[in-house]
Amino acid sequence: MRASERVNERRLWQRHVDMAKLGGLPRGGVNRQALSPEDAAARRLLAEWAAARGFDVYGDPIGNLYVRRAGTEADAPPVLTGSHMDSQPTGGKYDGMYGVLAGFEALEALEDAGIRTRRPVAVIAWMNEEGSRFQPGAMGSAVWGGDYALSAMLDVTDRAGVRLGDALKDTLSVAPCRIVPDFDRRFHAYIEAHIEQGPRLEADRRTIGVVTGIQGSQRYTVDISGEEAHAGTTPLRVRKDALRSAIAVVDALQRHMNDPADVVRFTVGRFECRPGSPNTVPGHVHFTVDFRHPDATVLARLGDGIERVVAASVAPCTAKVVRITDVAPTVFDARIVDLVRAKSEALGLPNMDMPSGAGHDAMHVAPHGPAGMIFVPCERGISHNEAEAATPADLAAGARVLVDCLAELANE
Amino acid sequence: MRASERVNERRLWQRHVDMAKLGGLPRGGVNRQALSPEDAAARRLLAEWAAARGFDVYGDPIGNLYVRRAGTEADAPPVLTGSHMDSQPTGGKYDGMYGVLAGFEALEALEDAGIRTRRPVAVIAWMNEEGSRFQPGAMGSAVWGGDYALSAMLDVTDRAGVRLGDALKDTLSVAPCRIVPDFDRRFHAYIEAHIEQGPRLEADRRTIGVVTGIQGSQRYTVDISGEEAHAGTTPLRVRKDALRSAIAVVDALQRHMNDPADVVRFTVGRFECRPGSPNTVPGHVHFTVDFRHPDATVLARLGDGIERVVAASVAPCTAKVVRITDVAPTVFDARIVDLVRAKSEALGLPNMDMPSGAGHDAMHVAPHGPAGMIFVPCERGISHNEAEAATPADLAAGARVLVDCLAELANE
Repeated sequence: MRASERVNERRLWQRHVDMAKLGGLPRGGVNRQALSPEDAAARRLLAEWAAARGFDVYGDPIGNLYVRRAGTEADAPPVLTGSHMDSQPTGGKYDGMYGVLAGFEALEALEDAGIRTRRPVAVIAWMNEEGSRFQPGAMGSAVWGGDYALSAMLDVTDRAGVRLGDALKDTLSVAPCRIVPDFDRRFHAYIEAHIEQGPRLEADRRTIGVVTGIQGSQRYTVDISGEEAHAGTTPLRVRKDALRSAIAVVDALQRHMNDPADVVRFTVGRFECRPGSPNTVPGHVHFTVDFRHPDATVLARLGDGIERVVAASVAPCTAKVVRITDVAPTVFDARIVDLVRAKSEALGLPNMDMPSGAGHDAMHVAPHGPAGMIFVPCERGISHNEAEAATPADLAAGARVLVDCLAELANE
Repeated sequence: MRASERVNERRLWQRHVDMAKLGGLPRGGVNRQALSPEDAAARRLLAEWAAARGFDVYGDPIGNLYVRRAGTEADAPPVLTGSHMDSQPTGGKYDGMYGVLAGFEALEALEDAGIRTRRPVAVIAWMNEEGSRFQPGAMGSAVWGGDYALSAMLDVTDRAGVRLGDALKDTLSVAPCRIVPDFDRRFHAYIEAHIEQGPRLEADRRTIGVVTGIQGSQRYTVDISGEEAHAGTTPLRVRKDALRSAIAVVDALQRHMNDPADVVRFTVGRFECRPGSPNTVPGHVHFTVDFRHPDATVLARLGDGIERVVAASVAPCTAKVVRITDVAPTVFDARIVDLVRAKSEALGLPNMDMPSGAGHDAMHVAPHGPAGMIFVPCERGISHNEAEAATPADLAAGARVLVDCLAELANE
């Protein structure tokens, strides 16, 4: 019997419904930012489900949460799957959560099918993939992979000044678990399931995206300083209006990032203006720059031009530019990509090879071993939005491909 | 003896020092927004000072606070002075507060000089001139003058959802006083003292600005709605990026408001972008538009063009434009203007006639009777800024002109 035969579409759907209540928003989305009370509740619920099935639950020092089904060889490097449970401030119910719940469904399907695997299979809920409360994102997987230092990340603060290490302690007091002292990077393979967050599968009427890699990205913060002044009395020629300069800077960056082929993804997602009073000339603007491209050369060229573009357009104010992240494009292991495609075919599921437009925790795992991803469709490609939607059938289809891949890998 | 001989420069300065502690900020400014605990503390302190001198203290239904020195004819329409005690979020120590404390110093100087006046003289601390917490500004004087409805203003909420009427109740529980049920608009004359908030007096080395009028102003809110989307996956051609549209709109408004003579004062002071996550395409931007000009025709032409300019530049998003205030230019009473000039001359103080660039409570008083203003210099014209500064000597000079004007008017 194939493990996929025991994937339970209704159970998987109900788990999404239950999780969506934690941080649920009136318009159907969720606000479950990393290490918030809502995130803690989700971690607690997952641990309860795991305990009910007899799976081992533990955490690591950055707050990644593991649910592990034992293999017959305790010391064999495990097969890993997972994604994240934190969300955007007005996020959807499936982004991240699907990968965790599909992974958990895979463990349950293996259990229900009575399949013993040689290697352990573990689901990881990576801490803080979104990076909306604590920057940078993909933090848990990046610390696990050695890309960011644990101590530095524990000292990151949110906009209210709360230290991540303290938020993690609070979270663990609500959702306690055993903490292992070290990051164990030994694994046999990693496969992450995720909604596509783009429109291609839906447009091409395919159920499974066989993900070949992830485009690279860079993120910056720009702080523009001017001088607060009275809006009624200060002549424009003597103003140092931080908002006026910021608008000129963003406009110049838009031109710098302009790509007739529409492959560059350039976004100013956070833009804050102080002091924020209608009759005071703004003295300070803070904004973020995020851009992505599959080609490392293009990424480097665009990123290296940012300081120059800002400096050339910020007068009469001044600017400080800081590079926050620089993530190279990821190319997934050909064997994993081939396996995902083969299992989709074996299940009769329409599929297509595609790169990922979004970053995922998989990019911090891939440098350390064979990794890949499985995409399922989401309505109109809408994500990072409360309107994010997916169907029970598509979610179950992805879980079926996932568990068949995991079962094969776990017996290698 | 002239009342101005009893103006006490050290006392007036110390009162500014004491008030600046209430809401004091690390860089020397104050955050004493309308009906905040800091504002309540200031109202309480003023009432204590008034009680110590035997002056009558009372409030009206919108929260304007009155300190009244009796005249020999109890029913004679009073002579009024005053300004406001609320501040910008990062405001200075003198904006508004000077007019209240100069008025209070005038009452004390009259008292110390033993001058009995025929008419009562009252200092008014107008509620919420700045409009930074509750919009619109100049609210207390506008309700007093019948320009805004009391009930509508009591129902205004701040960004945290707190109703103004509730904030006023809280304030009065900290700083209680007798509340008169009606707005009494009978008065003989009104003179408001204020720092210039512009650079002209300092540049021309004059101590007293004889204020001839106030430029008109209009204020709008603009809400731009797009669609939240994932920053990594959503092609730019299908985005409805509210920030990108807002930047195009503000840029278009800057061109619409462009004035080679630099008389138009155009400011976008508040600019808020949601949801504010670095990797989500913004779905909503809210910003304010404030512009001012001494000529009513120019004001009307600029204001009437705003909807068209916004609509022409907001695609692919949509916008909602709301006019919040439309304040016509004010021309002060010639007799008051002449009196301020004459008293300045009599005191040997260098002075100049000038319009006010900023709006003031006086503009809501002027339609109901003879009104005027007295300006004193502030350093480099900086205001609405923690660095706002004025000298004890200039503040006292303004108070001397004020009390000599009030004494003369109160005996008419």
